[in-house]
Amino acid sequence: MEQNEIRKLLQNVANGDILVDDALLHIKNEPFEDLGYAKPDFHRKSRQGVSEVIYGAGKTAEQIIGISKSFAEHGQKDILITRLDKAKAEKINKEIPLDYYDMANIGIIGSMPKERVGKIVIATGGTSDIPIAEEAAITAEMLGNNTVRLYDVGVAGIHRLLTHTEEIMTARVVIAIAGMEGALASVIGGLADCPVIAVPTSVGYGASFGGIAALLSMLNSCASGVSVVNIDNGFGAAFQASMINHMGGLNE
Amino acid sequence: MEQNEIRKLLQNVANGDILVDDALLHIKNEPFEDLGYAKPDFHRKSRQGVSEVIYGAGKTAEQIIGISKSFAEHGQKDILITRLDKAKAEKINKEIPLDYYDMANIGIIGSMPKERVGKIVIATGGTSDIPIAEEAAITAEMLGNNTVRLYDVGVAGIHRLLTHTEEIMTARVVIAIAGMEGALASVIGGLADCPVIAVPTSVGYGASFGGIAALLSMLNSCASGVSVVNIDNGFGAAFQASMINHMGGLNE
Amino acid sequence: MEQNEIRKLLQNVANGDILVDDALLHIKNEPFEDLGYAKPDFHRKSRQGVSEVIYGAGKTAEQIIGISKSFAEHGQKDILITRLDKAKAEKINKEIPLDYYDMANIGIIGSMPKERVGKIVIATGGTSDIPIAEEAAITAEMLGNNTVRLYDVGVAGIHRLLTHTEEIMTARVVIAIAGMEGALASVIGGLADCPVIAVPTSVGYGASFGGIAALLSMLNSCASGVSVVNIDNGFGAAFQASMINHMGGLNE
Amino acid sequence: MEQNEIRKLLQNVANGDILVDDALLHIKNEPFEDLGYAKPDFHRKSRQGVSEVIYGAGKTAEQIIGISKSFAEHGQKDILITRLDKAKAEKINKEIPLDYYDMANIGIIGSMPKERVGKIVIATGGTSDIPIAEEAAITAEMLGNNTVRLYDVGVAGIHRLLTHTEEIMTARVVIAIAGMEGALASVIGGLADCPVIAVPTSVGYGASFGGIAALLSMLNSCASGVSVVNIDNGFGAAFQASMINHMGGLNE
Amino acid sequence: MEQNEIRKLLQNVANGDILVDDALLHIKNEPFEDLGYAKPDFHRKSRQGVSEVIYGAGKTAEQIIGISKSFAEHGQKDILITRLDKAKAEKINKEIPLDYYDMANIGIIGSMPKERVGKIVIATGGTSDIPIAEEAAITAEMLGNNTVRLYDVGVAGIHRLLTHTEEIMTARVVIAIAGMEGALASVIGGLADCPVIAVPTSVGYGASFGGIAALLSMLNSCASGVSVVNIDNGFGAAFQASMINHMGGLNE
Amino acid sequence: MEQNEIRKLLQNVANGDILVDDALLHIKNEPFEDLGYAKPDFHRKSRQGVSEVIYGAGKTAEQIIGISKSFAEHGQKDILITRLDKAKAEKINKEIPLDYYDMANIGIIGSMPKERVGKIVIATGGTSDIPIAEEAAITAEMLGNNTVRLYDVGVAGIHRLLTHTEEIMTARVVIAIAGMEGALASVIGGLADCPVIAVPTSVGYGASFGGIAALLSMLNSCASGVSVVNIDNGFGAAFQASMINHMGGLNE
Amino acid sequence: MEQNEIRKLLQNVANGDILVDDALLHIKNEPFEDLGYAKPDFHRKSRQGVSEVIYGAGKTAEQIIGISKSFAEHGQKDILITRLDKAKAEKINKEIPLDYYDMANIGIIGSMPKERVGKIVIATGGTSDIPIAEEAAITAEMLGNNTVRLYDVGVAGIHRLLTHTEEIMTARVVIAIAGMEGALASVIGGLADCPVIAVPTSVGYGASFGGIAALLSMLNSCASGVSVVNIDNGFGAAFQASMINHMGGLNE
Amino acid sequence: MEQNEIRKLLQNVANGDILVDDALLHIKNEPFEDLGYAKPDFHRKSRQGVSEVIYGAGKTAEQIIGISKSFAEHGQKDILITRLDKAKAEKINKEIPLDYYDMANIGIIGSMPKERVGKIVIATGGTSDIPIAEEAAITAEMLGNNTVRLYDVGVAGIHRLLTHTEEIMTARVVIAIAGMEGALASVIGGLADCPVIAVPTSVGYGASFGGIAALLSMLNSCASGVSVVNIDNGFGAAFQASMINHMGGLNE
Repeated sequence: MEQNEIRKLLQNVANGDILVDDALLHIKNEPFEDLGYAKPDFHRKSRQGVSEVIYGAGKTAEQIIGISKSFAEHGQKDILITRLDKAKAEKINKEIPLDYYDMANIGIIGSMPKERVGKIVIATGGTSDIPIAEEAAITAEMLGNNTVRLYDVGVAGIHRLLTHTEEIMTARVVIAIAGMEGALASVIGGLADCPVIAVPTSVGYGASFGGIAALLSMLNSCASGVSVVNIDNGFGAAFQASMINHMGGLNE
Repeated sequence: MEQNEIRKLLQNVANGDILVDDALLHIKNEPFEDLGYAKPDFHRKSRQGVSEVIYGAGKTAEQIIGISKSFAEHGQKDILITRLDKAKAEKINKEIPLDYYDMANIGIIGSMPKERVGKIVIATGGTSDIPIAEEAAITAEMLGNNTVRLYDVGVAGIHRLLTHTEEIMTARVVIAIAGMEGALASVIGGLADCPVIAVPTSVGYGASFGGIAALLSMLNSCASGVSVVNIDNGFGAAFQASMINHMGGLNE
Repeated sequence: MEQNEIRKLLQNVANGDILVDDALLHIKNEPFEDLGYAKPDFHRKSRQGVSEVIYGAGKTAEQIIGISKSFAEHGQKDILITRLDKAKAEKINKEIPLDYYDMANIGIIGSMPKERVGKIVIATGGTSDIPIAEEAAITAEMLGNNTVRLYDVGVAGIHRLLTHTEEIMTARVVIAIAGMEGALASVIGGLADCPVIAVPTSVGYGASFGGIAALLSMLNSCASGVSVVNIDNGFGAAFQASMINHMGGLNE
Repeated sequence: MEQNEIRKLLQNVANGDILVDDALLHIKNEPFEDLGYAKPDFHRKSRQGVSEVIYGAGKTAEQIIGISKSFAEHGQKDILITRLDKAKAEKINKEIPLDYYDMANIGIIGSMPKERVGKIVIATGGTSDIPIAEEAAITAEMLGNNTVRLYDVGVAGIHRLLTHTEEIMTARVVIAIAGMEGALASVIGGLADCPVIAVPTSVGYGASFGGIAALLSMLNSCASGVSVVNIDNGFGAAFQASMINHMGGLNE
Repeated sequence: MEQNEIRKLLQNVANGDILVDDALLHIKNEPFEDLGYAKPDFHRKSRQGVSEVIYGAGKTAEQIIGISKSFAEHGQKDILITRLDKAKAEKINKEIPLDYYDMANIGIIGSMPKERVGKIVIATGGTSDIPIAEEAAITAEMLGNNTVRLYDVGVAGIHRLLTHTEEIMTARVVIAIAGMEGALASVIGGLADCPVIAVPTSVGYGASFGGIAALLSMLNSCASGVSVVNIDNGFGAAFQASMINHMGGLNE
Repeated sequence: MEQNEIRKLLQNVANGDILVDDALLHIKNEPFEDLGYAKPDFHRKSRQGVSEVIYGAGKTAEQIIGISKSFAEHGQKDILITRLDKAKAEKINKEIPLDYYDMANIGIIGSMPKERVGKIVIATGGTSDIPIAEEAAITAEMLGNNTVRLYDVGVAGIHRLLTHTEEIMTARVVIAIAGMEGALASVIGGLADCPVIAVPTSVGYGASFGGIAALLSMLNSCASGVSVVNIDNGFGAAFQASMINHMGGLNE
Repeated sequence: MEQNEIRKLLQNVANGDILVDDALLHIKNEPFEDLGYAKPDFHRKSRQGVSEVIYGAGKTAEQIIGISKSFAEHGQKDILITRLDKAKAEKINKEIPLDYYDMANIGIIGSMPKERVGKIVIATGGTSDIPIAEEAAITAEMLGNNTVRLYDVGVAGIHRLLTHTEEIMTARVVIAIAGMEGALASVIGGLADCPVIAVPTSVGYGASFGGIAALLSMLNSCASGVSVVNIDNGFGAAFQASMINHMGGLNE
Repeated sequence: MEQNEIRKLLQNVANGDILVDDALLHIKNEPFEDLGYAKPDFHRKSRQGVSEVIYGAGKTAEQIIGISKSFAEHGQKDILITRLDKAKAEKINKEIPLDYYDMANIGIIGSMPKERVGKIVIATGGTSDIPIAEEAAITAEMLGNNTVRLYDVGVAGIHRLLTHTEEIMTARVVIAIAGMEGALASVIGGLADCPVIAVPTSVGYGASFGGIAALLSMLNSCASGVSVVNIDNGFGAAFQASMINHMGGLNE
């Protein structure tokens, strides 16, 4: 509870508008529902400006259905479900219709926002990075952002990237996604004048160690203005990119 | 070179305004000076919106003086030098006056900008994280941002952090700096509705492994909206935070 | 053999109550049966206050049946079998009836104790940590402890945890179970005035490295009073928690 | 703030006993002092049953003096300062008299409690582990516990340990401290019927990797009832051991 | 674009031979096709002297067919596809005939060059390293090199290797392929007077850690003249070996 | 070739007993057959006192058959094939009869030696380590050693091990096999007065990291007289143990 | 206590030759002295056939003097002190005369045995490995073994090693010591028909990671008959080598 | 010994031109001198085409002087000593005059070759990488190669690198040296049509882990034609680069 709410509550108590025990109940009556296996957080929209998202990986179809219904009952109709494999998506679809984005492993209940703003460029080093890029792109679109996809522009043929310098120079945020040596983030970081969020991917073999090589490479980027999220975390990158893309001006 | 410049150059050639070889020279005449041991990049301000910064760690005092003079000759008077130890700072000071920020290991030639905008909150888990926090704070101020310091608000006594919820809720960006288990980033990430840039520090002992524990913790943050920079990289966090803090609104 | 037993034995020998060779036999006749592939330890109850438990993971159904029968013959009727997958459980059930706890991967031969004492709070960061939490909970109950389950109270929405401060403040022991960044242990450690046993889980992906991130985070907890067990070791946490919960007072 | 306090506060507001703004102030007036570089937590004693401790490693002598004075002003006269090297201790001693425990790297302002209860056994594998053991022992004594030191009882000569079986069998808690292969924890864990807290130390060379070998060994202990704290964290082990040793009986 | 091309283009503009916008278009019209999911690089042959190769691992059969067709349309008829499993190869074969090299996991569309030059020796430590060796051998042959295979000449029976000293002494390049302890590279490096490219393989178990042991061993080779590529990267070794084998003399 | 052989050869040449080219041929005619995919080493028996063994893991059934036939043609009738899975064993059995030891994953063509000497004790920490122990035991027996199996004598119930002190004190070599924390090696190392070869196993979960915990523990053993082989390398331990067990006395 | 001793003791009690309490005392009167900081183990000679050795690294000069005196009082006059730096050695020398072996960091109180038996070959890869080799050599000599030093015979110039084939073929044990890639162990392992004990050293830089590269290389040795001790553990290798060298024949 | 030498020797024996024992002596008389602490290898020039080099790091000044004199006596006058610190260099200089290259940590006895051939480009990512680059450059020059230094052309300002495309396109070999994220190797690898040897450096901090980040990045380079040497191994890169640069044409 924020201070303003506390003050109002206290004034209501002082005014006798509500009873002490009701106030206490109100404080205890937290903005989430306890499903036992999960405690969906309906307060998040007001707290973080974005509705709660369901991370599908560790949950059964039944649990996802339960959480989604709880969301719906609390007024959140459009729900993003990430890391959702096809089998679970089909199970859920029988109970609650959803659109499934195969490449992105994302299910959407309800609909995408029609109005999108700004511009987030999503670049990948290779073709194999596309699933993570799509997770980022669909998430970004669901959160109300315009996106531009630049796939397979890795540094082995740097002219492929340089051709798109204009796209990069006009982006509000860039998400740079690469496996193997992850050099893409540094090169884009050196070109762009906007924040770059780097996503290492587990694409590669041998000494890529499931994305560690790309992760370390990106953390050590010699270009300023680059930050990093977890390996394969397209969602996380898009979430922060959306926050940045939606920022109002300083004097607004 | 950007496309607009190329077009203009080509038109000048077509118009006979400049000769072919002069145009070629122009293309080759890149916006940096070659000092042999370094190639300072004077183009960066136009490319990234921020002047080149000198990373002091691997350079001799003589090299830093040389680069600084080259900057001055190209019109950049205010120079930020990071990772500068006191001994080198004193050596440089004899040739070029600089202000030295002891706690931050930063030297500044020229002056800080008088006008600063927005609000970047810089929070640390403990007292030992302060040097990294000061690196971030001085950098952010040098790049024209208002800062708020919240030091020693680690999660072991979470009420110390919750007391400052208001500061966090009104920030445009938060830099969360912590060593040991790095949980601060997740807790702030769950509270804030703005981007959070996490800086793991090498504070700790034993299984903190020089910051790896905090780094992994922050990369795996269960809170959305958190991205991470290198261990002890206060500068990098402030650089990206400044980019975000300076963003114009979508329709500006 | 403890000193008291040795003294008694020696006295019996001195008194001529038993022969030298019988005494030797007695010393050699150790309190375990040698099944070849296993040497179940019937002395454990007197030594550790808890009956031997069967760790099911590396054993065949046949071996588990053999060990269980050996237990039964030595008078231990109630047997806890951890890390038991469903297929093996069904095989065993045909020979020896057992109750199978699906979520916890635990089989119980005989019955749970009816009387349980004290209070162990078992908290998880997310829904995906529940299997490990159930392993801890069923183990704790089998060892005669009252349990309270607080699932999905991770730090990304810290109010979900703070709501349950009362439960945590009145626990005799807390088991804090979390994957990803494992921050839950530190936050609970800061709130609780009882011992906290942290269990890192392998929940997560990318730089969670199968639980290493959470493990390191928990080992580096800035909160005092937190100790850690192996990744996914719900059983081990519950075992020690039970020891603590069962402690008598200092002057009892 | 706990629920009972909130209820009382709300009743006072309802009764008109205190004004709304005073109540708000009361809620904001958190139980710590903000020294800028540190926020000592005076609430800890009531929250965790133990006074705040000063971790000396990352702090200057000046900061430690400042925090100590703040403690003294808030009524906490007896202060434990861990990881305090001799040089800093002497600096502090000039302003505030303290007793310095050389082997343990601990400074104590004020005095140790005269009454100590229960029994914590502190065992080490070798002579080189003694500094960590002394950190644990002095901490435990400062927190009001009786201690028994069993040093150099490593498993290479297991009869040295078995001789002390009686001490181990009568302990309320055992702290097992070892570097190198850390096997001591497992062997004690198999003998003891009380909780064992294992402390890996950085003693060793080569593939001990600064304590990683011992840490992993202890985390994988095949003995039940063993939990682990950070490498060289004698303080942390003693803190939790003290919590356990001080536990009241179930029906007290 | 190289400088010569820029100069020619500028002269054409100056001469009025082409319009400014056509010149701009020309600069933008980069030598690759954008298939959306991939941007095949037709410039590579002129830039690196070798045609683009398709890395099959992260791509669907459909994508490989699409890229191959795009290659064919741009005049590249002979295509090497590495890391291609049998199932995909058969799918592709239905659309575009290809030769599949089972042991090497390589598919070739078109044909191998008939003329091959020089001599690349490909040596393995054991029988299990052969798949990687075949990837190297087929790649080397496709790039126009003569190859000599020396398989199972590991250092455990060093006479097997010494017997082939003559082959090694007359090679222009040696590719040394080994898993486990990877000592083969050092021993060959000590014998050969030509460059040795070492390929660690993931052959082994336990502390070979998927090729890390061999990789570190090779990086630390006490023999001069040895460089290393990624674990299991037979292709990369052959690619560089081919570059070296094809080098002209200094005065040619 | 050893010096004595060279001397004899040179004398034969000097005597005119053999021609220069025949001598050269003799030197080149190395004691192995080149099967292309393998170069079986028939010299090993005279060089190492033990016949070549086939490591089955990375080889096809066809390759193993080919190598076995080559062995047979060179007079080696009794062949040990390690790391042989059941499916391959059955394939081979159709061409060459072999005895398959299921638990040990070993196939034997021909027969075990009837006479065995000395005494090798093979001890395991738990039931799950038995497959590795059986690999060691069958190998040791095939190499002509008497074996004693002590399974499930881990340190969690140390009396199970102490009961067998006599067996350990009379062994010529002990092979100590354990996963998890691998403490068994240290405890046996402290008891035995003969060489102890430690085998870490991949038994365990979480922070056992596939045997790393046990490996490090064993390498750091505080007991003297312990050496270590690769994780799960029962064969290697038995091979060296056999060498030691077969050693003649100093004055024989 | 061994069974025979127990039987004798019991008979004495039965015969009334000793009292019960005396017998109990006898059992408790363990063969070590408790110095508080150390518990020297005088039983080791009879248990392991070798006197207790003092590991000097973690002990003060005072502690070493104390332990040495305790040894002397129990009749052990010749004492080996490993990992002893020069400064400590000089301090000790003032109280108890000792011979200091500079290169080996070893001090010897009393004298080396005059009669040495068998043959242990100690080989190093390079000149920098000599300190570890000397630790092994002096230890081996102190334990009564003949030694042969083969230094700087690394595999980069394999003829340097092959020249000494005869020495290696006639050794009873070989200690192979190498840093960097550690290939020496495998090559010697392939040549020798006696046990090889490999010692990885921390010699090297970069990706040698303080000896990890050599350690992994040696653990993965493709040659049979090789076992490994800790990084830089010359003492441990010599200790086990001495055990093996001293073995009696099977029928002695 | 090569086959031709053996044949000649055998013929001489057959002809009676030399005695059997002389021949044996000749075979044993290996081309190195045994200094006890080192065995300098005078055969290397004929075997590898380059004289033996002295790796100075693990050797005393006295040892280096001894080895150098041994070289001089065997006719090698020009000697390269790498990893030589200034203090040692000065000591050696008093006995044998040498030129010391401060930045490169290299000493040269005798003189550099006057004639150098070909072209090796040595590029660094930053100013701090220069010491490693100088080690490579001086080595390359000593081995008879022309060099071009391109320092501080890291990818953060990629135009600095692109300006030098021509230098890179005309090199016979490129040595790409970079710390931090090591992306330079990939970008140069994508531009160059000659072999690229990548040298990761230990420049960086935090998650650069002493060069691991750059090492992994380079091993995973998505550009073909890149191989890697050990961290900070400028010498090794130059050695192989020289081999490649000196290669004759295929038909020479």
